[in-house]
Amino acid sequence: MQESLCSVDLRSIEITDPLFSHYVSMISDVVIPYQWEILNDRVEGAVRSHCLENFRIASKQTQGSFYGQVFQDSDVYKWLEALSYCLLRGKAMSFIPIADEVIALLESAQQSDGYLHTYHIINGLDKRWTNLLEAHELYCAGYLIEAAIAYHEATGKERLLGVALRFADLICATFGPADNQIHGYPGHEEIELALIRLYRHTHTKRYLQTAQYFLETRGSEPNYFVSEIANRKGPCLFEEFRDYDLCYSQAHQRPVDQRSAEGHAVRALYLYCAMADFAQEKGDEAYRIACEALWESIEQKRMYITGSVGSSGLLERFTTDYDLPNDRNYGESCASVALMMFGRRMAKLTGMARYHDTVERALFNTVLSGISADGLHYFYVNPLEVWPEACMPFTSMAHVKPVRKKWFSVACCPTNIARTLANLGSYIYESNGNSVVVNQLISSSIVIEIGKEKRILHLDVSDSGRSHLTLSCDKDLLVQLRLPWYANHPTCKEDGTKREVIVAHGYVQIQLHAGKTVTMDLHVEPQWMAANPQVRADQHRVALQYGPFVFCLEETDNSANLASLVVDSTRKPTVSGFLEELPGKLPILGYEAWKVESEEQGPLYRKASYRLKPRQVRAIPYCMWGNREKGEMLVFQYLKTV
Amino acid sequence: MQESLCSVDLRSIEITDPLFSHYVSMISDVVIPYQWEILNDRVEGAVRSHCLENFRIASKQTQGSFYGQVFQDSDVYKWLEALSYCLLRGKAMSFIPIADEVIALLESAQQSDGYLHTYHIINGLDKRWTNLLEAHELYCAGYLIEAAIAYHEATGKERLLGVALRFADLICATFGPADNQIHGYPGHEEIELALIRLYRHTHTKRYLQTAQYFLETRGSEPNYFVSEIANRKGPCLFEEFRDYDLCYSQAHQRPVDQRSAEGHAVRALYLYCAMADFAQEKGDEAYRIACEALWESIEQKRMYITGSVGSSGLLERFTTDYDLPNDRNYGESCASVALMMFGRRMAKLTGMARYHDTVERALFNTVLSGISADGLHYFYVNPLEVWPEACMPFTSMAHVKPVRKKWFSVACCPTNIARTLANLGSYIYESNGNSVVVNQLISSSIVIEIGKEKRILHLDVSDSGRSHLTLSCDKDLLVQLRLPWYANHPTCKEDGTKREVIVAHGYVQIQLHAGKTVTMDLHVEPQWMAANPQVRADQHRVALQYGPFVFCLEETDNSANLASLVVDSTRKPTVSGFLEELPGKLPILGYEAWKVESEEQGPLYRKASYRLKPRQVRAIPYCMWGNREKGEMLVFQYLKTV
Repeated sequence: MQESLCSVDLRSIEITDPLFSHYVSMISDVVIPYQWEILNDRVEGAVRSHCLENFRIASKQTQGSFYGQVFQDSDVYKWLEALSYCLLRGKAMSFIPIADEVIALLESAQQSDGYLHTYHIINGLDKRWTNLLEAHELYCAGYLIEAAIAYHEATGKERLLGVALRFADLICATFGPADNQIHGYPGHEEIELALIRLYRHTHTKRYLQTAQYFLETRGSEPNYFVSEIANRKGPCLFEEFRDYDLCYSQAHQRPVDQRSAEGHAVRALYLYCAMADFAQEKGDEAYRIACEALWESIEQKRMYITGSVGSSGLLERFTTDYDLPNDRNYGESCASVALMMFGRRMAKLTGMARYHDTVERALFNTVLSGISADGLHYFYVNPLEVWPEACMPFTSMAHVKPVRKKWFSVACCPTNIARTLANLGSYIYESNGNSVVVNQLISSSIVIEIGKEKRILHLDVSDSGRSHLTLSCDKDLLVQLRLPWYANHPTCKEDGTKREVIVAHGYVQIQLHAGKTVTMDLHVEPQWMAANPQVRADQHRVALQYGPFVFCLEETDNSANLASLVVDSTRKPTVSGFLEELPGKLPILGYEAWKVESEEQGPLYRKASYRLKPRQVRAIPYCMWGNREKGEMLVFQYLKTV
Repeated sequence: MQESLCSVDLRSIEITDPLFSHYVSMISDVVIPYQWEILNDRVEGAVRSHCLENFRIASKQTQGSFYGQVFQDSDVYKWLEALSYCLLRGKAMSFIPIADEVIALLESAQQSDGYLHTYHIINGLDKRWTNLLEAHELYCAGYLIEAAIAYHEATGKERLLGVALRFADLICATFGPADNQIHGYPGHEEIELALIRLYRHTHTKRYLQTAQYFLETRGSEPNYFVSEIANRKGPCLFEEFRDYDLCYSQAHQRPVDQRSAEGHAVRALYLYCAMADFAQEKGDEAYRIACEALWESIEQKRMYITGSVGSSGLLERFTTDYDLPNDRNYGESCASVALMMFGRRMAKLTGMARYHDTVERALFNTVLSGISADGLHYFYVNPLEVWPEACMPFTSMAHVKPVRKKWFSVACCPTNIARTLANLGSYIYESNGNSVVVNQLISSSIVIEIGKEKRILHLDVSDSGRSHLTLSCDKDLLVQLRLPWYANHPTCKEDGTKREVIVAHGYVQIQLHAGKTVTMDLHVEPQWMAANPQVRADQHRVALQYGPFVFCLEETDNSANLASLVVDSTRKPTVSGFLEELPGKLPILGYEAWKVESEEQGPLYRKASYRLKPRQVRAIPYCMWGNREKGEMLVFQYLKTV
């Protein structure tokens, strides 16, 4: 175990990586303004948000009806959180007065006792807390708290924090074991991790205690949701919840007893985040053991190679071990954000670097794929195989969109991606007092105080495969750098002189000396990857990975019917070009493949005959798919089996 | 074109084929009694039917609420139709008094004006005809009419026919172009083909005219369903119809203008049946052209090798050309019954035998698979690939059941399969006045009057692959025998002397001479089949077919993870045994395959390495799958690609 890790100050980090600096700048320069327009319903052709209008109606500034999802409020909270990270970095400063106006609006919509959830404020406060399973008031409260902490940290302004504290205090008073308290917990987790974050921000113990109450009460007998459903008056808010499956909300068992990842992927992962936070705060072994088992369940049996999760196209949920269909899955962008959140908590809890391998997998593939190169379009669902013609409305493939959308009627993903990328620096660096920990191999610099002295660490990754790293610091500094899973016999030099590579807990221990440069070569090459053979969907198939990037074929480079190709996994692809027009100018990998030679006319079924003809193909990083022409996409390619 | 074909009398046909005689006998001896118990809610562990109870409540014999689907009445109608075919064959005679009691019950539930639909009778007649899109009253009426005709033909009794005629007359009076008539049509087709059948039975022209009205009004502008939806008061009956897609009910276009098979597969095929019947009755070229195009759309682009249709797991519907996923599809048993119905109509309309190839495909594979060997369990959904663990409730795979069920809450399939198999003889033989037409190669005999003389034709198929046929007749007789698509260089002998094989319209023309025996050898061998390469889901895969039977692998013979096998399609499988315990003792095909050799422990994703080890596998006919232990099943096997 390492010494306890601390977050670093976003202000002190500058991201220079050509890929990520694009996205991080884009969040402050393009996405924050765009999403502001969206939240105000001023983007033509985008689904209506009505998010701010709901607050105006709730605060009686205007008249009207609630519109949107029951959790519509959360979109503005996540936008405020994303904005806060931009402000911390000195970006999007012109949005401060706008944010302050929004905060005043939220404050004026807040009820005198602290309650704030426009759905119930507009539709009748008598219904509040009566439908914890569906109404998402605690879920929205969690995002409010996270936004408030971030805004407070960014600006020092206390007004939004005040709103959040009043709501948090109401929640702490409302939920608990006393006879006059509600013995329930939310259908969609989020409040738990937010209350622990608030406890860390304020050191007020009741926030941790209420988080603990939610964690311990969930799934315990008698089951709160079972009785809530039994006492329900009127119809469900969500028709699909008519026959409710307790697993969907991880309410089938006490969280501390859970060992396999079940139900709605985002709900599950937000819960696991809170469990890991709780284990961290309390040193609770039982929760740590549960978290480790839940992590293994996902990473070893229920996760896509792109770091996405949620195999079922219905209900965005986990299914069973090794069930990883490539074309009909959900793989929600938010779920990969949540996997990043859980992964970094597990690394902090255990001191082991390997959890950041999976954070990297989710970040470099699904999360980046979730947003277009221009920042104005988003994927909610992230399949590994798309045949646009088959993604038809009114069918079981309707959830898969071959083209990113301007917005969604359920719009959780765009703001979640924004707050994650705006906060990227915190995924790269941590500090443990006497050293800097580098979790992500992303070119950047950090100014950090170690032993009362400020130091400037420069990290440079000169290739997208993460093979060649350079580190230097203006003063002596111990750096712990995650050695990624794809490194091969890493070597290290200091100013040209070979140095031993010492690895502890998955981190290379690098002593930097002032004025000297350390270079590392991880010998990363494009690598064909296979799934565990229990994964039926990936049998006789391989995926191409180069460093952290999973690659895919697109129709625009390789013509249609990508499934008709086979590849030889003993041959090494080579870099055959670069995506010059797309962020980061990532490499294109070229290799010989073979295409089935066959009459496409003629009967649907015919006597088998199988001939292949060679054909050069080009693969691009998955995170860039769908940024050119609409067409087919394929990650797992068929093997030439002999 | 052949001379006009006529149906033959089921009474005159005896089925001797070991496979089909099992099923046909089972319908009368086991299925009719079992389904009677089901309809009376007397089978433990089966989903509640309440079908007869609804009629008792509607006729005020008892008090209670309507229970079940809005189309629950149809189950008893199809049961009566199945029973009628059994009675025609002199079977299940003890059910005549029971049927007569049921008929009396139906009659007592019928309203004075002829209306009969228990859902609306119980819940309020003011709602009748107000929700044609969903309420299924015309759909149920169609099945009532079909049952009534069959019962009349079987028993000569007119009481049920009277019920049907009164309802049909009400429908003819209610729907039509006059100002005081409704200008609509049903959401689920069936009434159209039933009215044409009634016209053929009674020669009453208004039935044909009303069928024509329904055909011509559907999809015409202004669209009836659009206005019905706009004027809807209250919620939908079916939540999934909230955003209605007109294609789902083939109401997007006038049927005569339709060229591709769209929407709910059973609805579509019942419509196409009526269109073919109409083209037949009227000699209407435009409808014939539409039917031919719709047939091609299905058979050449939207049908599984097992003769199932409906690629979407949601809404049981057609999707797009070549979209034929193997594991998540619907492939409803009823849809294959309907494909058989459409196929035989197309053969009759065009005089071409080839349509019966597809009838055979549906019958020998999906329809037989839809019912268990014991007759007491049914599949509604018929996938070509099953991994039981992944067929989880509350996921997008919930519709796929790895094990047949005793009954369903939507129970259309069991009675539809029963009425089809009970009526099998009509799928084998037709007559065209001076010859007998043999459409299905199923061992049987028929007594038939040709030229005022009764003749007995014997057809014997000595192997399940349909290679060796023997025909004889006690008098001279011209037989036209469908030459199936899988025949190779067929040869023909009469008492050992070679005879030329003359084929017209896909039928071998065989002149039988009294006392002499004609033998045919079709040289049928097990054959590896491939799909058109546009079918992404079947790329690099082959299916094994032997005569009409598509084969599959089952876990019980080949251990788990069937997808890990590859086969060599240049090697011929051989008969390695027989399914001694199952109907027809069908052959087992054995062949060498190779299994991926790999560590199943270890990480989910690893550097690709691929080794195969040889392994003997056993394939069984698809129609028999799921009759032994629960386990995986696979039709399309992966190819050893080199």
